[in-house]
Formats: sequence, C-alpha cells, structure tokens
Amino acid sequence: MGKKLKILVTNDDGIDSPGLKELVKALKGLADIFVIAPDRQQSAISHAMTIALPLVPHKLNINGDTMAYAVNGTPVDCVKLGVSALMSEKPDLICSGINLGPNTSISVKYSGTVAAAIEGNIQGIPSIAFSLNSFSYMQDFKSAANYAYKIVNMLLSEELPKNLLLNVNIPSLNENEIKGIKITQLSNSKWIDAYQKRTDPFGRDYYWFDGNYINLDNDSDSDDNAIKNGFVSITPIEINYNHSKHLGFLKKVLTTK
Amino acid sequence: MGKKLKILVTNDDGIDSPGLKELVKALKGLADIFVIAPDRQQSAISHAMTIALPLVPHKLNINGDTMAYAVNGTPVDCVKLGVSALMSEKPDLICSGINLGPNTSISVKYSGTVAAAIEGNIQGIPSIAFSLNSFSYMQDFKSAANYAYKIVNMLLSEELPKNLLLNVNIPSLNENEIKGIKITQLSNSKWIDAYQKRTDPFGRDYYWFDGNYINLDNDSDSDDNAIKNGFVSITPIEINYNHSKHLGFLKKVLTTK
Repeated sequence: MGKKLKILVTNDDGIDSPGLKELVKALKGLADIFVIAPDRQQSAISHAMTIALPLVPHKLNINGDTMAYAVNGTPVDCVKLGVSALMSEKPDLICSGINLGPNTSISVKYSGTVAAAIEGNIQGIPSIAFSLNSFSYMQDFKSAANYAYKIVNMLLSEELPKNLLLNVNIPSLNENEIKGIKITQLSNSKWIDAYQKRTDPFGRDYYWFDGNYINLDNDSDSDDNAIKNGFVSITPIEINYNHSKHLGFLKKVLTTK
Repeated sequence: MGKKLKILVTNDDGIDSPGLKELVKALKGLADIFVIAPDRQQSAISHAMTIALPLVPHKLNINGDTMAYAVNGTPVDCVKLGVSALMSEKPDLICSGINLGPNTSISVKYSGTVAAAIEGNIQGIPSIAFSLNSFSYMQDFKSAANYAYKIVNMLLSEELPKNLLLNVNIPSLNENEIKGIKITQLSNSKWIDAYQKRTDPFGRDYYWFDGNYINLDNDSDSDDNAIKNGFVSITPIEINYNHSKHLGFLKKVLTTK
C-alpha cells in the first residue's frame, strides 16, 4: 500500500493506562497512530456519549514520542470526536484497548472498550477491541501487545472489509505459552447479579455491585473457553437489534380494542 | 390472574421527569408499581453501569401516592439494583420511560431508556421502553401515557414471553389524532456526526456534539416512518452480537505466520 495507514487508538481505562501505552508502542511500526482516549477510567461505561456538556480535548505526549488527546468523555465520545473533528481524515482502522480484564460474551454489552470499536463500526470503519484476561494492576501488557501487533499486521495484509468488527481477548500468559489464535463465538455466559448491602457512617444503606460471571458454555470455540485453554480469541461481532420473534404474539394481542 | 402483578418502572430522564410520573399514574390501575429511577438526567448513557462506586437509593414519594427510589446511578443500575436487591420478588414486567424524545433505529444503541429495557431482557424479564416523539419541555405526556396503558393492558391479557423486549415510540399527537398501533422494524437511519468547535473564555478549544439524524428508510413499516405517519410504533428487538460474516476472510488472514 502506498499511503501510510492511520490507526485511531482509544480505550476505556483512560489515557494513563499501561495497556493503551503498550498497544500504541506495538502498532507504531505499522501506521500513523492517533491516540484519543478518555482522561479517566471509564470501565462499564458501555455506549454512553456526552450530549449535555462540551468535550474539551487536552493534547499530551505518551511514550515520549506520540501525540495524544485526553478527552473529558467516554470511549464512544473519543471515537466520534476523533473521526468527526480532531483527525483531518478518517482512520483506516480503530483499535481499542488493551483493556485490563476480559470482555467476553455478554460483557461486550457493558464494556467501554468494545463500545468504542462498535462505534467505529457504526461509522463504517474497521474496528478491533483488545482485552487481556487479567485484573492485576501489576500486569505486563507486552505479550498481549505483541499479539495485537501480529493480528493487526496480518489483517493489514489485505483490504479490510469496512464492516469488520472484531472482539479480541488475550490470555494472561507469556507469549511462548499462548497456543495460537482461535476464531470464536461469544460464549453463553452470564452475570449473576448481587449487591452487598452496607451502612454508611450516617446510618444510610448503600449497595456495592458484587456480581459473579458464570461460563455456561462447553463449546471450545466459545471466547471464554478459548482464552481458558490458552488461545487468543477473535470473535467477529455485529450489532443487529431487529428480530422477527413474537410477531404472531404481538399481532394477536395488540389489536386496538 | 390471581396475584397482583408487579411492574418496575424506570427511565433515563431522571426521577423528576413528567414522563415517568405520567407513566406511573397510567399503569397504577394494572399492577403494583415499583419506581426505581436515576436521581438525575441520564440521556445517552446507554448500557453504562456503576462498578467503581456504591449506589445509594433514596426513598421518596411521587404523584403523592407511590413510593419510589431515586438512585445515584444509571438506568441499567436501577434495573439491576431493583431486581437483585430492592424488590422482594422479581417484577413481572419492566417499563422504561416515557422518554422525552424518540428512540428509533440506531438510537436504541445510545438510549438509556432502551438500555433499561434491554437489561430487563438480559435478566429474563419482559420489558418495554416507551419514548415520545417530542423534545419540548412543555410536552403533555397524557396521550402517550394513555397509549402506554392500552399497550400494557393488552399485553397482560396473555402470559408474556420471558424474552419479550419491545421498543415503543409514540407520536406527539392528541390521542384522537393517533392512527393506531403498527408493529415495526428499526429503520435504516443514521446520525451524521458533527461537532461545533468553540473557544472558552481562557482561549481553549471545546466541542459540542451537533449531529443530524437522517431517516434513510422508505418502508412504512419502519419505526421512524410509523411515527411520522401518526402511528404508535412497537418494535420487537433483541440483542445478538454473534455473527458469521467474515469467517472466510479471517481464516485466510489470521493464520499464525
């Protein structure tokens, strides 16, 4: 390809996240990198966007060599603002992450990391979300970033379908322990919600979310089982809300009486 | 049915919204109503949930006759906290709204009103989002609330499928001007994103979202065209992210080289 490619990098863990910095470092050899990320932690912010307040981007330097914008908004805001206002041309690819913590199965609904990639998809830009199966703040992202590099490098060997939307989850293993890449489906897993009820110093009740994630899937081609078995999981996803179930029920019941 | 039904009512415009109050008033004759709603405006908050801070519900009275909780969280938090902690039994139905402003087509991805209903669906509870096609703060919700009553009353004449998830949009018309109910599909519409760039009193750039919503659909059975033509639009939706597109492309490109 003649012209140098442009990759927009964002995340939901915020501009200071080591996962973002390692991803930028890894992708730098492949393309011009534009970093536009939330100025703070935004985990579980999903597809939220800011409409009632202005967005104020702050320029800063990350890794000593890459210009970045920190934005007082959500991951979706970062993609929208980047594509529509801050970048002079649309990016060729959007990469979101690397998230601290997996985003498998139903978690794609809550994740800000995945939402940024979905917003890229809505804008007609090939987009990838990267997440690492670890919650440790001491986590080394090098091995995951090397896999992100490999994946993007392989993808860029071909013209990318405009509606390509990939959800990548990487096991927390040394690179030589990772068994390879598996193309997967979102697993049949669920959150069993629970809240711990506590009492504040003034005697008022408050509630902390304390849900449990349960993997109900035995299929080795599910994303949860792929990372459990040491594979990098790549799930092609799409958003499609329309469905035709219940039409008979609705037509029967919803006759204006 | 012997036992009195329980309906959880929430929204994204906040506990003080007239749309919520009118919905509660309308549904009160049909079931026991539990109101658990955000303590402030949360438009475009999508499926965000609170994990890093505790939720503090405050009891209050709305309409002079209904006990309600205002929660320092999102619509999804309200559904999760209501179902898992505040209500003694699962509700039979969740109703979210009535939102000030339509939630048609791709807007279901950004809407907190619809997200609350989707969360109900994830929890296995029949759920309905109600939105009114008006942005006027002087809007009278009576006619929309009467339609919400009619719809819920008709639905409750049958046992509801557990995975019933309906997105209802109501035109801003007097009740006698509404032409009836139409079962619809989400329309092929899109937001053309734009940001107005301005300068703050200190000389810094800031950006206001200023997108335009474009209806690209000619089908009279699309939600946008139904409300434009004076019908109440009821769209059965589902969430399903898995898809099998691009598998050939991925298998070709993503061979570990």
